[in-house]
Amino acid sequence: MTVLPRIKRRHFLLASTGGIVGAAAGLPAMAQEGKALPDYVAWKDADDLIVHSQQTLETQRGAIGSGLVTPSEDLYIRNNLPAPSEEIVADRDAWELSVEGVAEPRAITLGDLKTIGVETVACVLQCSGNGRAFFEHETSGTQWSVGAAGNVVWTGVPVRDVVAAMGGVAEGLDWLTGTGGEEIPDGVPKETIQVERSVPKEAMERAILAWDMNGQPIPLAHGGPLRLVIPGYYGVNNVKYLKRLAFTEEESPNKIQQTSYRIRPVGEKGAPSQPSMFEMNVKSWITGPLEEAGTGKVQIHGVAMGGITALEKVEVSTDDGQSWTQAQFLGPDMGPYAWRPFVVIADLGQGSHVLASRASTVDGQVQPETFEPNERGYGHNGWRAHAVDLTVL
Amino acid sequence: MTVLPRIKRRHFLLASTGGIVGAAAGLPAMAQEGKALPDYVAWKDADDLIVHSQQTLETQRGAIGSGLVTPSEDLYIRNNLPAPSEEIVADRDAWELSVEGVAEPRAITLGDLKTIGVETVACVLQCSGNGRAFFEHETSGTQWSVGAAGNVVWTGVPVRDVVAAMGGVAEGLDWLTGTGGEEIPDGVPKETIQVERSVPKEAMERAILAWDMNGQPIPLAHGGPLRLVIPGYYGVNNVKYLKRLAFTEEESPNKIQQTSYRIRPVGEKGAPSQPSMFEMNVKSWITGPLEEAGTGKVQIHGVAMGGITALEKVEVSTDDGQSWTQAQFLGPDMGPYAWRPFVVIADLGQGSHVLASRASTVDGQVQPETFEPNERGYGHNGWRAHAVDLTVL
Repeated sequence: MTVLPRIKRRHFLLASTGGIVGAAAGLPAMAQEGKALPDYVAWKDADDLIVHSQQTLETQRGAIGSGLVTPSEDLYIRNNLPAPSEEIVADRDAWELSVEGVAEPRAITLGDLKTIGVETVACVLQCSGNGRAFFEHETSGTQWSVGAAGNVVWTGVPVRDVVAAMGGVAEGLDWLTGTGGEEIPDGVPKETIQVERSVPKEAMERAILAWDMNGQPIPLAHGGPLRLVIPGYYGVNNVKYLKRLAFTEEESPNKIQQTSYRIRPVGEKGAPSQPSMFEMNVKSWITGPLEEAGTGKVQIHGVAMGGITALEKVEVSTDDGQSWTQAQFLGPDMGPYAWRPFVVIADLGQGSHVLASRASTVDGQVQPETFEPNERGYGHNGWRAHAVDLTVL
Repeated sequence: MTVLPRIKRRHFLLASTGGIVGAAAGLPAMAQEGKALPDYVAWKDADDLIVHSQQTLETQRGAIGSGLVTPSEDLYIRNNLPAPSEEIVADRDAWELSVEGVAEPRAITLGDLKTIGVETVACVLQCSGNGRAFFEHETSGTQWSVGAAGNVVWTGVPVRDVVAAMGGVAEGLDWLTGTGGEEIPDGVPKETIQVERSVPKEAMERAILAWDMNGQPIPLAHGGPLRLVIPGYYGVNNVKYLKRLAFTEEESPNKIQQTSYRIRPVGEKGAPSQPSMFEMNVKSWITGPLEEAGTGKVQIHGVAMGGITALEKVEVSTDDGQSWTQAQFLGPDMGPYAWRPFVVIADLGQGSHVLASRASTVDGQVQPETFEPNERGYGHNGWRAHAVDLTVL
């Protein structure tokens, strides 16, 4: 059983109970919390996941380990709406994208997008609410610990190349808007549930329209056949089943843009004037050991990310932040948007230890000790709440 | 059906027949050539593999695509002996390694190895016989096309750190010898079948004793709990279930070292005087398109490796080597021992085209047009035989 440390007490108890139930039943297809994998992601690795709900699956903290690339089978799932029919990945190259707000707007198939250009980028995919469980106040939404994040390799055509092929961005359009291909039930106003996100136009310089994930066609559950990937931006901006890419004068009028995914004080409603969940912040977390270890030297490992900036270093503390040791990065640097596994070998005495990690970027951002509460529990990167309580036996 | 181009006629026919049988049966668990996955690798992705035998599974050429890291589910299998019992991965940290030929030789558990040091390296794992099917002469052994190779991320302790912790290499010992933990049946002379390989001592500078593969504990089928990984060296030197690591005066007396894996003229027997399959050579191959494509622009992609040296470039020809275009590398450079996916977008007219790729290293090695036949069909890196016959419709 993996104990998720330092989580709000009510969630801690829930996780413990689920874990015990799962272990007692001994069912290999059951993920943590005793829930089976939903059918549409039956190909995932149940042993490495926590099933929060049909649409929300989290990678277990211990399963992240010091993995350089997150295997697709372990990658978290957070879908705002049910995925479209499998039919849309039957003939991937036939998928059609509408490109608007360029000099020569037109519909283009995925097959034709592949003739324009191609790029591969490694980047962290992370839900805005990753770390929500570490806030002390009550928050609605999935109580993610650290596992609504993964390091993923995407291949697709750069948005800037598509734009260039269509004559450039039309005048006066400041936003890059992506619209998802989820089905909207009859009678439901589109604006209330449709996944459509706008990001500042400048993001087009690093955005890609991706068809491959980790070297294979993007699974339907992760947005195949075509996904908008914006390296360094929170997951919600990486629109799945992308059916429309538009440069627009204003942000999308949809709820998911206007009032959701907005950082605001606890108790306040969402509003367009509040900061939106665009660029990710610097962050790291320990992935092992998580609960108990024997005496003697032990490898303390984890992963760290710079958000939109390359990392300078990660430090690890085994005494609740009183002293810090610089960690060793593990493996090749896959670029500024990727995460870097890290390790410290420490010799810990018997008793309780608080293991923490703190990442810094090359431009001087440092993970803070604490993180201000916000209504929806977004963007937590405080090192103290992410720390691990370890008992050395 | 994936047609394996330019393969000896007899194998081409075999592959075609198997593919048709498999397709007609429509059984998703059946891999190419109509053979089901062996039980011990039932977790592999049958759709992406060719099952040559219980001990030899090849990644399909098309499945390699432009994948930066080969998913474990797609990685080839070539076992000289059946894998040991699953029991050896039940308590991985208890696995014991005997370290010999150092100042302070001793047995050490995997758990204790983890306290000495750790490193992550991305490198190509490739069977010596990868490309055997491209030789024109008759060769015994698995008729690999291009898929007895993958790009793998390994994590483990550097051998040099283990050696330093044990007082250094003892005097006069020129070879680094690894012994595998496969069971040797009673009555079989150990030397005839035991997997024990020696490499020049200098390889210790980059060798690691690995416990993780692609971020997860090494599956038994790939040599878990502990595998000797020598970046840049052919697969056979990467001894699985490593139970002994010894610096020795002479090469292993076993057949696998003395007479097997030796490059020699066709018709000659293996002998210790012949070159052994140590360092890999520069190589690349197209992974798509493989058979047919529509008119208009098409992405030609593949993978390239420098062996023990970083790549300088890869060139692609669509006219059987008459002219060449420099390809674009795709994604981050994962170091000199890793492969690099590449792509060229070409506009091909109707008719037949021969697609070839040719890699060069930073120190001036270039993939040759042809490759000298050798008795066992090792090390083929000739670009002409690896080319693809494409029909544009």
